[in-house]
Amino acid sequence: MCHDGVLRVRRGKALVFNMRNFAGHRNISERQGSEHDVARLRDVLTSLHLTPIIYEDKTRNQVDTILEEVASEQDLADDDCLVVVYMSHGAENGTLEAFDRALQLQDLWECFIPGRCPSLWGKPKLFFVQACEGSKKMEAAVAPSKKSKGLPTTTSTDIVGDEYTIPSHADFLISKASVPGHVSHRDVISGTWFIQTLCDVLVEHSQMEDLVGMLTLTGARVARHFQTSEGFRQMPSYTSTLRQKVFFTPPQ
Amino acid sequence: MCHDGVLRVRRGKALVFNMRNFAGHRNISERQGSEHDVARLRDVLTSLHLTPIIYEDKTRNQVDTILEEVASEQDLADDDCLVVVYMSHGAENGTLEAFDRALQLQDLWECFIPGRCPSLWGKPKLFFVQACEGSKKMEAAVAPSKKSKGLPTTTSTDIVGDEYTIPSHADFLISKASVPGHVSHRDVISGTWFIQTLCDVLVEHSQMEDLVGMLTLTGARVARHFQTSEGFRQMPSYTSTLRQKVFFTPPQ
Repeated sequence: MCHDGVLRVRRGKALVFNMRNFAGHRNISERQGSEHDVARLRDVLTSLHLTPIIYEDKTRNQVDTILEEVASEQDLADDDCLVVVYMSHGAENGTLEAFDRALQLQDLWECFIPGRCPSLWGKPKLFFVQACEGSKKMEAAVAPSKKSKGLPTTTSTDIVGDEYTIPSHADFLISKASVPGHVSHRDVISGTWFIQTLCDVLVEHSQMEDLVGMLTLTGARVARHFQTSEGFRQMPSYTSTLRQKVFFTPPQ
Repeated sequence: MCHDGVLRVRRGKALVFNMRNFAGHRNISERQGSEHDVARLRDVLTSLHLTPIIYEDKTRNQVDTILEEVASEQDLADDDCLVVVYMSHGAENGTLEAFDRALQLQDLWECFIPGRCPSLWGKPKLFFVQACEGSKKMEAAVAPSKKSKGLPTTTSTDIVGDEYTIPSHADFLISKASVPGHVSHRDVISGTWFIQTLCDVLVEHSQMEDLVGMLTLTGARVARHFQTSEGFRQMPSYTSTLRQKVFFTPPQ
C-alpha cells in the first residue's frame, strides 16, 4: 500500500458534497445545473469501484461533522483511498461556501492527516473542488503565430528511524476547477466544465492512465474545448504530494 | 508543440537563482551548503540539454530585471520550455527572499504568461522553488500498525473560436520543496534534500519518465529517506496546469 511506485485502488469511499441552494438571507445564487454533476459523479465513481455518498446543501457544521465522523471510522482501514468532492461557490484564498456560511479548503482535508486519521496513513486522500477561486475571468491566450513551435532552514541528518514514518502531509492530492483568483464555469444544461470533463476522462482513460495523467488530460480538454461567449477560458490545476501513481483499475 | 499528449523538450533556458548571502542589515543567515545545489543543477540541467544560467545573490530589482529581459527575448521562440529555479529562504504565502528584500512566488512566473511573453505560448514554464514556506516543522506520521494496508459561476457555451487559444495560465508547473506553512531542510555538506533528490531522480529516470512522474518519485524519496535528528520530515509538493506529459529526452 505505502510503497513508492504504483497503487491500484480497489475500494474507497467518495464523499460528494453538492451545494446548490444557500440560506435565503445570504443572497447567493442557486447553482442551477449542478444536479448533472452529481448524477454523473455517482455513475462514474461507482464504475471505478468507489462508494459514492452524496450530501446536498449541508451547513458548515454538518460538513465538519460528516468529515470528522468519516475520519474516525474504523472501516476506513479496509479502504485503499478516500475521495472528497466539494462543489459550490467559492472565492479567493480557498474560501468555499456551505449552506449557511463559508469554510476553507483546508477544513476539508485537515482532519485526514495521519495524526487525526490513522486509518488513512500512507493512502491517497483525493480532493476535487468545483468552485471559483476569485472573480477574475481568465483571458484567452492567442497563439502568437501559426508557425509557433509551438526560512530559516536547518541542517539535518539523513538517518531513517527504525519505525517507518512519512511526512504528515504526504499522499494528498487537491484537484481544482481553476487557478487562484479566477472563476470556473457551469452550464445549467450540462453541468460544470471541470466535473463533466473529469468524468469523461475517467471513463475513457482509467484503464490505462494514472490519476495525475488523467488530470493533465482533463486540464488539456477544458483548456481546449470550452470558452464563454465572451471568449473567456478556464484552466484547472492540481496540487500533489502523492508518492505513487494512483490507478483506479486493476491491470489488464 | 501545443497539442495534448506528450512534449519532448530538446532545448530551453534554465535560470538558476541561488541566494546564499543577504544584505548585512537584514540579519538573515547565510545559506551554507547551497553551492552544492548550484553545482549539481548545472551538471544535471546541462545533461538534459537545457542551458543553465546561474545568478547568485541578486537583489529584488535585479531578479525582476532578469526575468523581464528573458521574457522579452526573441530567441525564446526557438526554445521548447523555460526552467526557473529559485533557492533561498522563504516564509508563508509564497514569500521568497532576495539579497536585499523579499519578493513573492508569483513575481517569478507572472511575466511569463502569454500576454507578457508570447514566445512561450503553449510551452511548459517550469518553476522549482527550494525555500521554506513557513516555520512549522513537519511531524512524522508513524504507520499505525505493521498490518496496516496500507464563487459566483457563469453559464457559458462550449463553442471554440476560430483562432486557437488557451487559458492564460495553462502550461505552468511549480514544484516546491515543502508544503505551505512548513520548513524545508538543507545539509551544509551535501545541499538541500529537495534539490539533491530531484537531481538524482532526473539523472536516473529522465529516459523513461515524464516530469510529473519524476516529481512524484522525488516526493516519495524525500519523504522516505530524510529526517532531522529530531525526527522531523519534509514533503515536497507541486502544482500543475501542464496540458502535456513533459519528457526531457528523446524516445529511445
